[in-house]
Amino acid sequence: MATTNRRPAEAGEAQVRRVIEDWSAAFRARDLERLWSHYAPEIRSFDLAPPLEHRSELRDELAAGFATWDGPLGFELRDLAVSASGDLAFAYGLARLRGKRSDGESTDLWYRVTVCLRRTAGRWKIVHEHASVPFYMDGSFKAAVDLEP
Amino acid sequence: MATTNRRPAEAGEAQVRRVIEDWSAAFRARDLERLWSHYAPEIRSFDLAPPLEHRSELRDELAAGFATWDGPLGFELRDLAVSASGDLAFAYGLARLRGKRSDGESTDLWYRVTVCLRRTAGRWKIVHEHASVPFYMDGSFKAAVDLEP
Repeated sequence: MATTNRRPAEAGEAQVRRVIEDWSAAFRARDLERLWSHYAPEIRSFDLAPPLEHRSELRDELAAGFATWDGPLGFELRDLAVSASGDLAFAYGLARLRGKRSDGESTDLWYRVTVCLRRTAGRWKIVHEHASVPFYMDGSFKAAVDLEP
Repeated sequence: MATTNRRPAEAGEAQVRRVIEDWSAAFRARDLERLWSHYAPEIRSFDLAPPLEHRSELRDELAAGFATWDGPLGFELRDLAVSASGDLAFAYGLARLRGKRSDGESTDLWYRVTVCLRRTAGRWKIVHEHASVPFYMDGSFKAAVDLEP
């Protein structure tokens, strides 16, 4: 760890913000190796797509997902809260995903993202990720893919 | 804190498991005061229902939600991972919610739950909660309310 006069929690938070920035940049670039380098082997992901939970198969699913896009992705996080203490950290906020699918369709989706991280051997890794939209409780059970903050 | 020979992280995890057990019991009993006692004032909730994010209005929404049920709720958590370090903790797993609506309809839903907690003045409080189901990527944008682990 770099020498710092900040409280350990603040230093941890700054480190985690940098991890999330690099993870976001890797997502925008559709760079699977760089993205995957931020995940711990014990990753449990609750993703936008079924099933309920994804574990180590997430890597292949990310690769398959990346292949459905054409060109770089727009990915921004808004109102990101980041907390770190000891060897744990979590972050949550709203994400906007924009891009063009290889079939020509355009996507512009706001959703919610939570990531939980653990520091092992000095490196912060994502052990859990939760991405979702809510759904309409009007009996339609439609995913609310049209919401904005 | 109670005297313990366990590592601080293990003691924290046991404390957080007890909080989540009481939070679950309050939910089953539809006991708003007991449930709300587990939330921090800065709560940010990503819930099953829109909008994308709920803050302090969550309390009134929980009250309104409880009123739509008839009798106690079935609420179980499966594969719950709990981690604590310093003054932060997180937990995630799958939840099954069962009950009868006051309009006579039955609900039996598996969904994903993530909770993030912070210890302040010796008490663990939920600062963030994320509950969701995924949605089908087949163009229907239907919420996947029919999944099981």
